[in-house]
Order: sequence, then C-alpha cells, then structure tokens
Amino acid sequence: MQIEKYRIEEFNHLHSAAHERKFAFAASSVKDPESILQKLIDFQIAIPSWALGTGATRFGRFSGGGEPRSLEEKIEDIGLLHALNRSSGAISLHIPWDIPQDYAAIKALAAQHGLRFDAMNSNTFQDQPGQAGSYKFGSMQHVDKSVRRQAVEHNIDVIKHGMALGSNSLTVWLADGSCFPGQLNFRKAFRNTLESLEEVYAALPENWKMYVEYKAFEPNFYSTTIGDWGQSYLLASKLGPKAYTLVDLGHHLPNANIEQIVALLLMEGKLGGFHFNDSKYADDDLTTGSIKPYQLFLIFNELVEGMDARGMEHATSLGWMIDAAHNVKDPLEDLLQSVEAIMLAYTQALLVNREGLAEAQQENDVVRCQEILQEAFRTDVRPLVAEARLRAGGALAPLGFYRKSRVRDQLVQERGLKTVASGL
Amino acid sequence: MQIEKYRIEEFNHLHSAAHERKFAFAASSVKDPESILQKLIDFQIAIPSWALGTGATRFGRFSGGGEPRSLEEKIEDIGLLHALNRSSGAISLHIPWDIPQDYAAIKALAAQHGLRFDAMNSNTFQDQPGQAGSYKFGSMQHVDKSVRRQAVEHNIDVIKHGMALGSNSLTVWLADGSCFPGQLNFRKAFRNTLESLEEVYAALPENWKMYVEYKAFEPNFYSTTIGDWGQSYLLASKLGPKAYTLVDLGHHLPNANIEQIVALLLMEGKLGGFHFNDSKYADDDLTTGSIKPYQLFLIFNELVEGMDARGMEHATSLGWMIDAAHNVKDPLEDLLQSVEAIMLAYTQALLVNREGLAEAQQENDVVRCQEILQEAFRTDVRPLVAEARLRAGGALAPLGFYRKSRVRDQLVQERGLKTVASGL
Amino acid sequence: MQIEKYRIEEFNHLHSAAHERKFAFAASSVKDPESILQKLIDFQIAIPSWALGTGATRFGRFSGGGEPRSLEEKIEDIGLLHALNRSSGAISLHIPWDIPQDYAAIKALAAQHGLRFDAMNSNTFQDQPGQAGSYKFGSMQHVDKSVRRQAVEHNIDVIKHGMALGSNSLTVWLADGSCFPGQLNFRKAFRNTLESLEEVYAALPENWKMYVEYKAFEPNFYSTTIGDWGQSYLLASKLGPKAYTLVDLGHHLPNANIEQIVALLLMEGKLGGFHFNDSKYADDDLTTGSIKPYQLFLIFNELVEGMDARGMEHATSLGWMIDAAHNVKDPLEDLLQSVEAIMLAYTQALLVNREGLAEAQQENDVVRCQEILQEAFRTDVRPLVAEARLRAGGALAPLGFYRKSRVRDQLVQERGLKTVASGL
Amino acid sequence: MQIEKYRIEEFNHLHSAAHERKFAFAASSVKDPESILQKLIDFQIAIPSWALGTGATRFGRFSGGGEPRSLEEKIEDIGLLHALNRSSGAISLHIPWDIPQDYAAIKALAAQHGLRFDAMNSNTFQDQPGQAGSYKFGSMQHVDKSVRRQAVEHNIDVIKHGMALGSNSLTVWLADGSCFPGQLNFRKAFRNTLESLEEVYAALPENWKMYVEYKAFEPNFYSTTIGDWGQSYLLASKLGPKAYTLVDLGHHLPNANIEQIVALLLMEGKLGGFHFNDSKYADDDLTTGSIKPYQLFLIFNELVEGMDARGMEHATSLGWMIDAAHNVKDPLEDLLQSVEAIMLAYTQALLVNREGLAEAQQENDVVRCQEILQEAFRTDVRPLVAEARLRAGGALAPLGFYRKSRVRDQLVQERGLKTVASGL
Repeated sequence: MQIEKYRIEEFNHLHSAAHERKFAFAASSVKDPESILQKLIDFQIAIPSWALGTGATRFGRFSGGGEPRSLEEKIEDIGLLHALNRSSGAISLHIPWDIPQDYAAIKALAAQHGLRFDAMNSNTFQDQPGQAGSYKFGSMQHVDKSVRRQAVEHNIDVIKHGMALGSNSLTVWLADGSCFPGQLNFRKAFRNTLESLEEVYAALPENWKMYVEYKAFEPNFYSTTIGDWGQSYLLASKLGPKAYTLVDLGHHLPNANIEQIVALLLMEGKLGGFHFNDSKYADDDLTTGSIKPYQLFLIFNELVEGMDARGMEHATSLGWMIDAAHNVKDPLEDLLQSVEAIMLAYTQALLVNREGLAEAQQENDVVRCQEILQEAFRTDVRPLVAEARLRAGGALAPLGFYRKSRVRDQLVQERGLKTVASGL
Repeated sequence: MQIEKYRIEEFNHLHSAAHERKFAFAASSVKDPESILQKLIDFQIAIPSWALGTGATRFGRFSGGGEPRSLEEKIEDIGLLHALNRSSGAISLHIPWDIPQDYAAIKALAAQHGLRFDAMNSNTFQDQPGQAGSYKFGSMQHVDKSVRRQAVEHNIDVIKHGMALGSNSLTVWLADGSCFPGQLNFRKAFRNTLESLEEVYAALPENWKMYVEYKAFEPNFYSTTIGDWGQSYLLASKLGPKAYTLVDLGHHLPNANIEQIVALLLMEGKLGGFHFNDSKYADDDLTTGSIKPYQLFLIFNELVEGMDARGMEHATSLGWMIDAAHNVKDPLEDLLQSVEAIMLAYTQALLVNREGLAEAQQENDVVRCQEILQEAFRTDVRPLVAEARLRAGGALAPLGFYRKSRVRDQLVQERGLKTVASGL
Repeated sequence: MQIEKYRIEEFNHLHSAAHERKFAFAASSVKDPESILQKLIDFQIAIPSWALGTGATRFGRFSGGGEPRSLEEKIEDIGLLHALNRSSGAISLHIPWDIPQDYAAIKALAAQHGLRFDAMNSNTFQDQPGQAGSYKFGSMQHVDKSVRRQAVEHNIDVIKHGMALGSNSLTVWLADGSCFPGQLNFRKAFRNTLESLEEVYAALPENWKMYVEYKAFEPNFYSTTIGDWGQSYLLASKLGPKAYTLVDLGHHLPNANIEQIVALLLMEGKLGGFHFNDSKYADDDLTTGSIKPYQLFLIFNELVEGMDARGMEHATSLGWMIDAAHNVKDPLEDLLQSVEAIMLAYTQALLVNREGLAEAQQENDVVRCQEILQEAFRTDVRPLVAEARLRAGGALAPLGFYRKSRVRDQLVQERGLKTVASGL
Repeated sequence: MQIEKYRIEEFNHLHSAAHERKFAFAASSVKDPESILQKLIDFQIAIPSWALGTGATRFGRFSGGGEPRSLEEKIEDIGLLHALNRSSGAISLHIPWDIPQDYAAIKALAAQHGLRFDAMNSNTFQDQPGQAGSYKFGSMQHVDKSVRRQAVEHNIDVIKHGMALGSNSLTVWLADGSCFPGQLNFRKAFRNTLESLEEVYAALPENWKMYVEYKAFEPNFYSTTIGDWGQSYLLASKLGPKAYTLVDLGHHLPNANIEQIVALLLMEGKLGGFHFNDSKYADDDLTTGSIKPYQLFLIFNELVEGMDARGMEHATSLGWMIDAAHNVKDPLEDLLQSVEAIMLAYTQALLVNREGLAEAQQENDVVRCQEILQEAFRTDVRPLVAEARLRAGGALAPLGFYRKSRVRDQLVQERGLKTVASGL
C-alpha cells in the first residue's frame, strides 16, 4: 500500500489550528527557529530491514500480522514510515536476508519512496544452509583459517551488493567471543579478527566506510572479542581512516557513560554512527527514548557540540540507524515512536545555549551547567518537530495518522495474518 | 544405549591406584569422612528434560548431534548421566514438551534407570498450536480473565501428569511482566497473579509443594511481575504452607548477594529449591561453577548451616535442579561438569568448621571467619566426591569415561546427526 | 539572614509578564489546572539538616563557605529555601548532630519560618565520644546484646527529642551488615535486628510511624542486613501497623525497577516515605532529577495512581524527604534544584490521563500506554509549578532570586568562609 | 618491633611434620615443582604505605590500635609482613603523606628490612594546607591552567622523591571527572589531562615508567576523565613508550571481564601493573581473593600466558601492588591474607597445562578447556606456597605466627591504642 499525499494533507488540515498555536508559542521561545527547522528537515534516520517484523526472545515469538514477506514489502513499509514522518529516508539491508533479485528494480522502488541505501549489514553470527564452515565458535576470530576466510568473503560479498545499490558503508557486528573461561586465547582471537577485518577493509571501495560495532555480551556470555569501545577503537585505528566505531546504545555494561564515549570517539575522528534503541538491563532493544530519554538527549548534546567543533555537517556525516526489536508492539508504530524520540532529543540538543554552557563550564559553575541542559530538555519541542515534518510533507502526527487510517489492517489484508518477516 | 556396569568397573580399576592415594590423603585431613561420604551418596540433583539438547540464544542455535528425540530418549540420557555419577537420579519434566503417551511405561523406564520424577514444570510463556488465548501479554497476570483461566488450567493439567508419574512438586516460572513503562498496572498484575496461583494451589494434592520462581528480567525488559525474592516470598506467604520460593542462580540483578537471600528464605521456612547454573552478565545459563565457584560454595555454606539449624535432611528436603543451556558444549558433558561442581561445593560446605565459625562470628573475628571458610574452599575435595561416586557404583571420572567410551558417537549413530531435542 | 517578602514580590514583578504568557499557554492545555495548582501548593518536601553543608566522599571534602554552624542556622537555611519555593516547609533532624538546647526556642524558630519537624533520624553507624559499645560490627544486629541495647536506647532517645519538637516519625537507617563472607550469621543478624526494632517499636507513641530504610551496600561491602525492600518489608510486617518501608532512590542494585517496588509497597500498605536523590552508579546522592528524570516521573506516576487507589491524600500521607550530598555545588542551590525536579515530576504525574491509561492497559495497547505517559512527561510544566509557587508566596524563579540576591555571599559574611556544617 | 629469625624457625619447626606430608603430596602431582617454587620465591608484591592503618568509608572510621605514626613505622610494619611471608619486599609511597625527612636513613631502614621502593603515588585528589589552587573541580583536567600546572609540578616533585629513594615508577591516579551532566566538556578535559601528563612524562627519568590508572567512578559520580582501560590506553599510547596502563581490580563497571582487558593490554605492550583487591559492588577495596578467587586466578592465567608469549620475566616485569582498605580487620592480618591469595592464584596459574589448553582451544573443545583451568584451580596449592616461603626464610603460616606471637598487642604497646595512620 502507499499513502496518498492528499490524505496526509487532509489529516494535517484537521490539526493545523491546534498545531499553529503550539508552534507559535514554541518558536517564540527559541532563538533561531528557522535554522533548527532546517536541520530537522535534513536529518534522516535509517530503518533496518529486519526491524519490520515482530521480534523474538530466546523464549519465543508472538507474531503480529501483515509483516513484510519480501525485500520489496520491506521497502514499502519504510516508504510508509517516511511518507508519514519524512525522517526515515534510508534503509539498512542485511545480507543474506535481503539479497535483491533485481538491483535496478529495487533501486527504482526505493527511489520511488524517497529512500537511499544506508549501511549494509553482514551476518556471520548464524550458519546459512549449505555453508562450509560453522560460526558456532566464531567467525573472524575463528581458530580455523578457512572459517575466517569464509567470513571475510561473505563481507566482501555484502560490499558488492551494497555497491550495486548505491550504499557506501558496511557495518560489521561480530558475535564472536566465548562462553567459558579458557575457551579462547583472547590475544589470538583479537589478532585473527584484526587480520580478517584487514582483508575486508582492503576490499572497501574508496568512498566507503566500515563501521566496527562492539557489544559487551550476548550471544556469548563470558567474553566478546569486540566487547567495548576501546577494543573497537583499537581495531579501527589499526585498520585505517575508513574504519570507524559504531555505537549501539544497548551494547554496554551497566551504568556506562555512553555520552562520554561518544565525545571521545568524535574527538579522535573515529565515531562512525549509531544504532538507536533503549534498554534497562541488557541489549533489550526497546523503543528509543522509552526508558532513558535524558541519556538520549545527553548523547545528542555531545553530538551537536562535537560535530560543531569538528565542522561536521550534523545531518549527514554520521550513520544514524535504529536497531530495536518489537516484541509487543506493531513494528511500524514502534519505529514511529523511536524516530519521534530521536527527533525530540536532537531538537533539545540544538536548543542548548552553547556559549552559556562553555562559560559556565569555564567557571566551574556546576549548577548553571545543569540548568542550561535542563532548560533545553524541559522545553516542549514537539511543535518544532511537527512543524519540520509538516514543511517536509509529512503528517503532523504520524502515529495518529497511522492509526486513524488503519494502515496495519490494510497490510494484514494485503499480506495475511500469519506472515513472518525474514530476519531474527 | 546403556552403559554396562562391568565397563565402569573396568574403567575404575584402571584408575583405582591413583584414586586411592589421593583419597587416603584427602580423608586423612577430614574429621568424619564416612559421614560426609554418606551425605554425598545421598545427594541427588534433578536433570531437566529440556537441558539435553543444544541451547539457543535469540540469535540462533548451533545444534550438535545425537540429541534425544523423545521423552524415552531423554530418560535414557539422564540414565547415562546417573549411571556415571550416581548423583543425577531424578528428572524434571516440562509440559507440554514431555507429555507421556503411556504413564506406566515411562515410570517403568525411569525406574529401570534409577530415576524418580522431580518437580513438574508448566509453560505459559509460549503459545501452543490451537491455544485459545495468547500469552503475548502475560498469562497469570493477564488483563483478560479467560487467559488467566487458561494458564491456571494448564498448570492443573501439569499437576495431573505429575501425579500419574509420582512427582510431588510443581515449579511455576512466569515470564509475565512488561516491556515498557505504562504497559502494566503493577498492582493489578500482581493481584491477578496471586489469584491465579491461588486457583492452582487449591488443586495441589496434599503432599505436593508449589515452587514460585522469580526472575529479574528477560523475556520482559521493563518489569517482571515475580521479579525478585521479595515478590516471590510475598506470593508464597499469601498462598500457604505448600508454597515456596525457588531460587535460580541466574535470575538476579547484578551483584546480588544470593547466599543472603537463601539464608533468609531458609529462616522463614520458605526456601523451596534451586535451579543451578552460572552467569557473568544476565541469565546466561552457563555450566554451574564455571564462573563463580566461590559464590556456589557460599550458597551451599548457607544451606548446610541453615538446614542443620532447622533440623532438615540435607539431601531430600529441598528441590535441587540444574537449569542451564548448552550452546557450545555437548549437553551431557556440560551436565556432568555442573553436577561435579555442585558436589564439590557441597562437600566443601560440609568441611566448614561450624563451631569455629560460630565462635569467630561471636567474637567479630572477621579474619578468622574468612580463614575458616577459605580453609574449606581451598581444600581439594575431588577425591572425596570420587570415592562417594565409586561406592555408589559410578565412575571415578564420569567425564573421562564418557569421552573414552565415545558415548556421544554412539548416540549420534543411534539417533542421527540432525536431531533437535524438543524444548527451547 | 531572612528574605523580606517585598524583595520576592519585586523580583516576581519583574518576571511576571513572561510568566503569565507561559502559564496561560500551559494552563490552556491542562484539564483542571486549579486542582493541580492546589495539590502543588500543598506538597511539602522535608529538608534534612545534614544536607546544608558540603558533602564528602571517603577521598575528601572540598568545603564551601557560609555553612550553618548550629541547629539554629540550619533552620535559618531551610527557612530561606522555603521562603523562595514554599515547598520546603519541613526539616528532618539527625541525632546526635541536632540535639536542641532549648526545645521551645527551636520550635518557635521553626514556626517563624513556617517549618514543621518531619522524621527524626537516629545514628548508629558512627561511634560517639564516650560511647560504651562500638558499632564497628553493627548496631541492632550486633552479636553483643549490650551493643544492641545501646542502639535501641539511642533510638528511644531520638523519639523523645522528636516528641518534644512535634515530630511524629522515626527513620531508622542501619549500616549494619558485613564486609566479608563468613563474618555474619545472616539469620542471627536478621533476628537480632528484628528484636531490637521491636524494642524501639514498643516505645513509639501512638500516632508515630517508624520508617525502616533499606540499602543494597555501603558502608558494608559484602552484605547489608536490611539490604532490599523485601527485607525491610519482612521487618515492617513483623513489627506491626506503625512500621513502614522507606525507599531511598540510591539504595538499589544496578537496574532495579524502583517504581514497581513503590507500587507493591503501596499495595501492601507498607510504603512509608522517600529519600529523594539521583544516581548513576551507586548511592551517589546526586541532585534529584539530574540523571534519570524519567524514572523520577515514573515513580511519581505510581504514587499518584496508587494513592488515588487507596484514597490517600497525596501531599500528607507519606514522608517525603531529600537525602543528597552536595560535593561540588552550593548546598542551597542544589536543594532548590532537587525540589524543583520533584515538583516537576509530581506535576507531570498529575497530568497523566488515568482513564485513558487504564483503558489502554486493559486493551494491551502498549504503544498507547507509552504515548500517554510520554504525553505528560514531554509537557513543559514549569509554568504550572511557578504559578503554584507564586500563589503560595514564593519566588517565580527561586534559583534566579537566590543568585541575584547573592544569598550565599551574605551567609559567608555572617558565618565566615571556613565553617563546616556538622554531619557527614 | 622486629621478629627474630629464630622465633620463626621455632614456629616452623613445630609445623614442619604436617607441612612436609602435605608438601610431598602436592609436589608429587606437579610436573616441575622446583621451577614453580623458584618463581614463587622471586615474586614480590608491594605494600602501599597507606594500607597499614584502618580504612574508612564516607560514613566513618573505626580505628584499631598500634597503627604506624610515621614513615619509619610504616616501613617497620611492612618489614614485619615481609619477615613472615618473604613476598612483601617492596613499599609504595604516597606523597605528601610519606615525604621522608632523611632519604639516606629511610633507604637504610628499608634495606635493613629487605624492602625496595616500588611505584611512587601522587595525590591530586585532595587539597593540602596552603595549596594555591583547589582540586575541587579536578587537577590535570582543570579548566584553569594554573591548577593543572600545580598538579604537574606536584607529580614532578613526587618523581624527585622517588629518585632519591631508588624507585623507578610513578603511578598517576586522577580522581578528575564530573558529578553532573554538563559540568565538563569531555573533550577539553581529556585534552587538558593529556597535556598535563605530557609535561610530567617529559620529566620522567630514562629508566622510569609512568602508570596511568583508570577508574569507572568515585569520587566523581557522573563521569571520570580516565574512566576505563580504553581511555588509559589512549593516553598511554599518545604519551610514549614509558607510559603504561595500571589495572585496579575494583575500578570497573559491573560484570567487566578484567582478564580480557589484561590480555589485550599485554598484547599491546601497555600493561604496567596491578592494584590488587576484591569487590562485590564497587571499589570496595576488600581483601584480595575474598569475593572472587576464580576471577583472580583467571587474571593470573592471562598474565602467565601473556608474559610467556612476550618473553617477559614473571616476577619483575610488572608492578604488583595491593591497594585495599581495611575497615573491619587488622590491616596487617588483612595484608597477609591478600598476599596469600595472590600467591595461591599465581601458583594455580603456573599449574595450568598450557600445551593442553592451546590444543583444546585449537579444537574448540570447550569442555576440555574448562577442565584444564579447573584442574589447576581445584588443586590445593597451599603446601607449595608454604614451601616457597619456608625456603625463603619466612613462616610456614604467617597469620598463625602473627597471632601466636601477639604482634598487634606489641605494636599497641609500643605505639598506643589511639594512633591513626596518615592517609585516607
């Protein structure tokens, strides 16, 4: 299905009076609302192809209906999101789940929905049917050179798919690690991983980036070979200028200060991008902003400040992607909530009085530093985000429109009740 | 397959000289070795039927071969373990995965292997084909009375299966909880759960126990309705004298002092039993004793002390069970390692100088308290456990025998390479 | 020093136009602003006497100037806070740090500032000069009956001081626990504690409450005898109807779901009160709302909902108190920030659409549940809180007034630069 | 006081028969006992001067008696330890707490006790009387260049003291960080720290090492500027070949895999040394090996393996130091327990079948990997450590001797009951 533009306009018309009142109030308290609106319009968050179906835990899956059955339907789903919020203009594919049959047709379909192809994702954490070596004991870290080689070749393959589609980055997440003390020689595992990544790096086209993701634990429960930002940074440094660290908000030990990690990676020129989600306990993969919205704001605060300092373009210099599971929500609704939370945090970060903050920091005026951050965070910026969306052609209230138009019902009608999206 | 007794005797004969030397040394440093040996011989740990196949994470499963394809083969597997270590003389079934076709035949088969039926486990965390209501949003906590009723009836059904087999306890683990703030009215969820449990409790035969398990998180990632020992205790207290708390070592928040919880539950007469495993991060379900063996010893230290104080029989008053996943190990080998670790910790706890410890505690002599515990923990008690096993008819080195006799190869030959055990 | 009313009025006058515009907007989006404002006016948070000086870690203290040198000056400080925000109308004393010389004079002074005496706090975690027994190895848990008796008598003494001042509650926080495995017999320690608390309970006047505080760790680093809500609840249940659990936001293991604990304690009628602060790692005692403002809101959400359900008066039925340390901020500024954060969270909780939430919960509409909570949280409620303060006679911007009037400079001038407040 | 050699010999004589029996048994199960004994004899652990008095938490201190009142008495204390265990032959000083009056006399005194001067420790986490700038808001990170310069000069001063005493390393632990979001510009703080450390590094003598310590939190509770191994490694890399990372076992987030960090730092040639202690919750500074002895063994397992791989000398290439607090134990007894636990873990690591482990790892035989590690860990190696001590001239049972000889009583008699050691 596709959402006709006029229906969005009708919807917006109904809500425009209320919106205008709120926006007028919000804009009046902001210094340069137009510049903020433009940044919001430019900001695009990639949607991963595997996040369009119901997620599962190891204990089971409770599927919903109308899930996309093909790459084409996944693109259609993201097209729906983007039509509504105008901030989801990119798709991140996962190989082998999303191997296109016809590159040109897929590119055309994506273009039709206004979507570009963001980072490509490889998969060496599962065995595929007919695969020679098994990843049971790791992939790029594996003691057996032939398994490492298989993992390298798969990644090179993923790059090729990406090139054909116009992507320009590769995200490598390795589940590699160990479940028990003694299982692994940590140093050999690290060196094997480095060597494997070097081979992939060598195959990277000139304008491509490689994102090296880290994760504290799961699915390995004693050690993970790329387990923290330090290990990812070490690898990215050794690999070269096209290698970067990717930060997934759920991949840390309890209580980690993620915003500080972000600031340091930016300082070192090694921050590649983000996987957004939220969590309370582990890699819970919950809706972004549903548990710790202030932390999300603090991360954006570092991003805005750090990118300003480096002269980077906010909207385009980093890879922004959602990576969440949707176990108890409609995936599309969940993604709308995540994108909204990200836009709000970004807007609040843009509102921070940077000069005042720098001055208060210089004076060790801790109370004022906090006041300045909370002044931005406590501001109701929803009308600003809505206005940006409106100007970009989206719906004033994407979730409201989605429900009112019964989008899911139509998808179920088209695709059936018992579909299961490929992926996890 | 079954292991002939003479083969174990041959194996033991080969190792008996070395063992005798070690045992003589070990026994000479222990006050009453005979009494300890008897306790070790009596101690039996139940094996859950679902732990006999390769485990999985949400990211995938890497199966091994020769996994049991039926309840009969599961009993056969545990029979093998018990033949080797004489400490695995019980099986814990999971309904609906282990519904017997013929109760009498199953009872006879178990008896033939020297196994009794330990706690029965219900399953309301997954939907079964054809089930009327879904557990997507909980079972006993569910807002819909009919779903709650369905969960209650399933548990009553499980009791009936257990009665037919000679079990006398029911373990209730509820995955119930919520993934997002606001999703649940905590109080209503708790009350619904209590009401549902009361209905199950009412169906409990006179001599049965109900174990109420708790877990901090997973598969729900914001709240769990029976989330800690306090919540389980509250329910067990309200339910009545046949209801107890069950402690799974992996079901706590980081850094929890589990041994203290054990002591308090024993004090209140509400400790029902254990699910043994080990973990570093979350509910990792690793081999017992593979990560924190000293914690395991401290827990047994409380058990021995607390049961002495209450005049309880060590070996038989509580429900002891392993509950681990085996993602990268042969499940049977993994279970042999877990049982061994439990027996060692139990033995070390039996060695603790109780009078000396009580005296040192009374004098606040913290250094001596620690010395007394570590004196026991640092003692090499493997020869004592081996001797107990020998006397009970088991193998001096169960894992050694298992490997030398190529048990897994035979199971693969009998059952095939691509079997997948029912269960998670 | 004291702040003349006319100076606050002058200050408010300067800011009134801006405030009125904001308040008009805020009030227009709220259903019953008057009822909310009344609740905010009624809500009072006690300030602990020990929070008026610079806090310390075990590594040192960096004192500020003008700290109160006596109980009279502590009351004066809280009087200043209350004059500015009209929400700090109570003081919580700590014995022996705050033993009055002249009860009548102290009561008169407090009354003059509009302050009442909230919960009294005993201290059995430090040895006082001339004390017979030492609390090095605990107080109410102590193996020596005479030390336990000393702790009991001290608490009874604290009650007497409180009675003389018009307080009606006692907060018992015990640092009791152990630093090493084996040091303590957990069960004996618990029973000794219960017995000691029973003796204090027996001395409680008819209309008094006893708050039993729990804490996961620190200053003991292996076990704490009242270590979690379950242990506190167990004690409070055994003690009787005047005993309640007190929740300090920093006293939990990592990732604990505090709002769920709050809901259950309310359900059981055993929630006594709060110590507000914020934390990232441990008992960090940071400014309330400075790290996890959404969690603070979720806690208030449970309080509002739970108290409604029990027909309790919001403002007066529980003990509300700040318990933070101020290591790098002016203590009075820090307290103003904490009170503000609490008022904002309370207001947002009052805005939650309760009927809508109950309905969405009943329908398992998780997306809508989250939307309803976040609708309230994302609303800028600062104008409502400011309006309530204005009506109650406080300053529109307490911190702004405090800084503009150079209150701290005047305190330094009056009291000196090198004062150190009594307490930690 | 000093312990006469003949008294140790008398003591050993009394216990020699029992020891010989145990040692004979232990030696018979080890491949090359002589080589292990020599390594144990060579291994020396430095004792920090500040660990000789009773430790404190922020809530208070419960002092014991006979604490050293001067640097001379601290050396005397460590001399006692070394006389008993022959493994404490080094002292680590803290400036300004241990500034010698007479270098030659202090060197002579240390030599008389067989002690060398290990790493020097600077202190920029507290303000000293008369100090120009304050460290309230950090030292080397400080926004004010003059404060940074003061911290640098203090460190250079510490180096000078160390040179005069024959030390050859400097440990820099910075408490620098922030308590609240916004307080710090993370990148500026990091750069200021780097610049300051560079100035200290420039002053380092040719043969000196600089250890850059990291810590997750405390005394700052939002961010620490050198907060994890990655940040320390980044600094050490930029500083140069004389800069290394120092690992304190208590300075990590919950559940961190410290042994993996150790392995990677060794691989990169950047592991400088250790602060040994144990912890359950935070930087608890408990007796080494009292909470997680298996983790201690796993760390030594990496050290032995990693140093073998790099051709490093076990005993001398790294800085080994205890850094614990002694809040409820006699500090000297506590240190004897810590050293013993370290020696046991080191011995067990030396017992690991390296070839077998490498082979099992190469075959992904996870069960066997675990068996090999646990084979070593479960071995009772106390007789080996005792034998090494005996041969080196120490007491078979240092703690037994200490208690039997009533060393503390004599120290109290000499020094008094109310002494408080300088330091924390």
